[in-house]
Amino acid sequence: MPDRLAPGATIGILGGGQLGRMLALAAANLGLKSHIFCPDPHSPAFDVAAARTVAEYDDETALRAFAEAVDVVTYEFENVPARTAEVVAASRPLHPGARALATAQDRLAEKTFAAELGIPTAPFRAVASEAELARALGELGAPAILKTRRFGYDGKGQVRIEPGMAAGEAWAHLGGAPAILEGFVAFSREISIVAARGRDGAFAAYEPCWNEHRNGILDVTRLPAGLPSAAERAAVDAAQAIAEALDYVGVIAVEMFVVGEGERASVAVNEIAPRVHNSGHWTIEGAETSQFEQHVRAICGWPLGSTARRGRIEMRNLIGAEIEAWSEILAQPGAHLHHYGKAKARPGRKMGHVTVVAPEGT
Amino acid sequence: MPDRLAPGATIGILGGGQLGRMLALAAANLGLKSHIFCPDPHSPAFDVAAARTVAEYDDETALRAFAEAVDVVTYEFENVPARTAEVVAASRPLHPGARALATAQDRLAEKTFAAELGIPTAPFRAVASEAELARALGELGAPAILKTRRFGYDGKGQVRIEPGMAAGEAWAHLGGAPAILEGFVAFSREISIVAARGRDGAFAAYEPCWNEHRNGILDVTRLPAGLPSAAERAAVDAAQAIAEALDYVGVIAVEMFVVGEGERASVAVNEIAPRVHNSGHWTIEGAETSQFEQHVRAICGWPLGSTARRGRIEMRNLIGAEIEAWSEILAQPGAHLHHYGKAKARPGRKMGHVTVVAPEGT
Repeated sequence: MPDRLAPGATIGILGGGQLGRMLALAAANLGLKSHIFCPDPHSPAFDVAAARTVAEYDDETALRAFAEAVDVVTYEFENVPARTAEVVAASRPLHPGARALATAQDRLAEKTFAAELGIPTAPFRAVASEAELARALGELGAPAILKTRRFGYDGKGQVRIEPGMAAGEAWAHLGGAPAILEGFVAFSREISIVAARGRDGAFAAYEPCWNEHRNGILDVTRLPAGLPSAAERAAVDAAQAIAEALDYVGVIAVEMFVVGEGERASVAVNEIAPRVHNSGHWTIEGAETSQFEQHVRAICGWPLGSTARRGRIEMRNLIGAEIEAWSEILAQPGAHLHHYGKAKARPGRKMGHVTVVAPEGT
Repeated sequence: MPDRLAPGATIGILGGGQLGRMLALAAANLGLKSHIFCPDPHSPAFDVAAARTVAEYDDETALRAFAEAVDVVTYEFENVPARTAEVVAASRPLHPGARALATAQDRLAEKTFAAELGIPTAPFRAVASEAELARALGELGAPAILKTRRFGYDGKGQVRIEPGMAAGEAWAHLGGAPAILEGFVAFSREISIVAARGRDGAFAAYEPCWNEHRNGILDVTRLPAGLPSAAERAAVDAAQAIAEALDYVGVIAVEMFVVGEGERASVAVNEIAPRVHNSGHWTIEGAETSQFEQHVRAICGWPLGSTARRGRIEMRNLIGAEIEAWSEILAQPGAHLHHYGKAKARPGRKMGHVTVVAPEGT
């Protein structure tokens, strides 16, 4: 492994939000420095990094200087522009690589990729016009969900089409952007697999997380998810197949629907995130190795750590004004507060999270 | 509690070594910023802090500007000069306070203070000349340990006097600095109590740690220490009495000797450290709340966290070239590597540590 990094090296991180911040904290524990690149001068990750670049993602001069100042580049968000990735990858290793980015940025490419691997997804159709939407609705039926192919997150860029709703109305809602229509999946639960693949191809998954959303944003993650073992195996196998097909390096999160109950339950892939993931925040206290340390290990060419779980887990996001409860949370025995250090608690903004790890069997 | 800080506030830390670094990491998890003041431009804590001041501890202009830029001041080493403490305390709360510093900086003041509280220590005598040393040796006998009153740490500034050794030889060894002679304590073990006291007077101790030293430097800390319950209670009570008498705010560590075995074991205080402590590093993975978070909670006026232990603990320091084993440690399942990011691995320098938490009963 000639390109294995050593402590003292610098990790370049594109994006300065809470994920970049928690990556930088994990890197510091391992003796690594972080250099954060972000256009927002108030990025919370800047406060814990050895170096920072405030520049736009299309500032190629700044990107080149950034890449040359670091030893490896990673990112905290999947919408890194392809050209940005190309510029930094010209001088330093970029993990996860460009293919993972391209696949995860485009919901159509993502679903097509999964389908080609034989991994179940919701039924889907590419939709580039109102006429195509009408035809796709005829094929998949309603309810269905129309989503922009690109730049959707936390429930943004999508509209649910109810039976009887006109194609034109839904189409107008997305403003004519290239889209994908996804057939309705009668799921019983949403789960995710957070996993990592090393530079040597080693793969290590955390146990499936059971996720509950509110207003399209992750609200609570719980473990154990209580999946039947066949469904759990199918979920982990799907994540591994995806990571291997992408020649992936780093932490990956695959969101899935659980369809059906009991031993007949199966999973369908909903979304791939080529990065550390909100549903993996529980690993900071709840697993032997946090997803942030795991990602750092992977991109440095180091061995992956143990993903063993330490107890029964509940991770709750603190969205917007919910962060005002910080002092009550601090007073709860066993509640682990994470405050992202963001100055303004706008509605819908992820401000922090709290994790409780209870002994197994309680 | 009108002076309680809120997330977004800035903690000023005097000292930029690994303790300052781990304090800053813990503060960041709670949404706080850190500002590190240290004369060494290569301080490892700088890499994880929002702001840094490179200046000498007697640079009063820099100290005043630093204090005015932060909301509370703390420190990572007990040899903060009294005048430095006075300058920062003139504009911002300093925790722990000047009395704790003054007591811990002077081995004679420290032992006298403990003795006045009725807490057992090694027998001791103040020694300011060769003649006083000879007299003290006559009273306490040999073996005994002659220590400088100030600026000792990790076994520095002390000499062991064997039976038959001349007072003059020992006295010359310390270069004539004001000293304390400590009678020999036939201890079976060395332990420490790491504890915290909040601004409201709340007190919370971690379980006693069993410490083994090598070449005068902490080598391994293990828990549980297996102390008889009466000795454990006496140790925690001594730490609490010390913290209360100092009107202490923050984490304190009290090193003690265990004298005798079994139910007849008792403890004698050896040293008070008014700060987070090497023997408390295990709390990062091994306790519900790390000593670093606990210190931050205390100095911010927040409730103390749970000190519950999570399993059987072994924390091992990585001294000097031992840090070169980092990649083997990363490959050990369940081993938690902490690398302090120091560039040069000088002999005797604390470069990192590794903690293993095993399930109880294994």
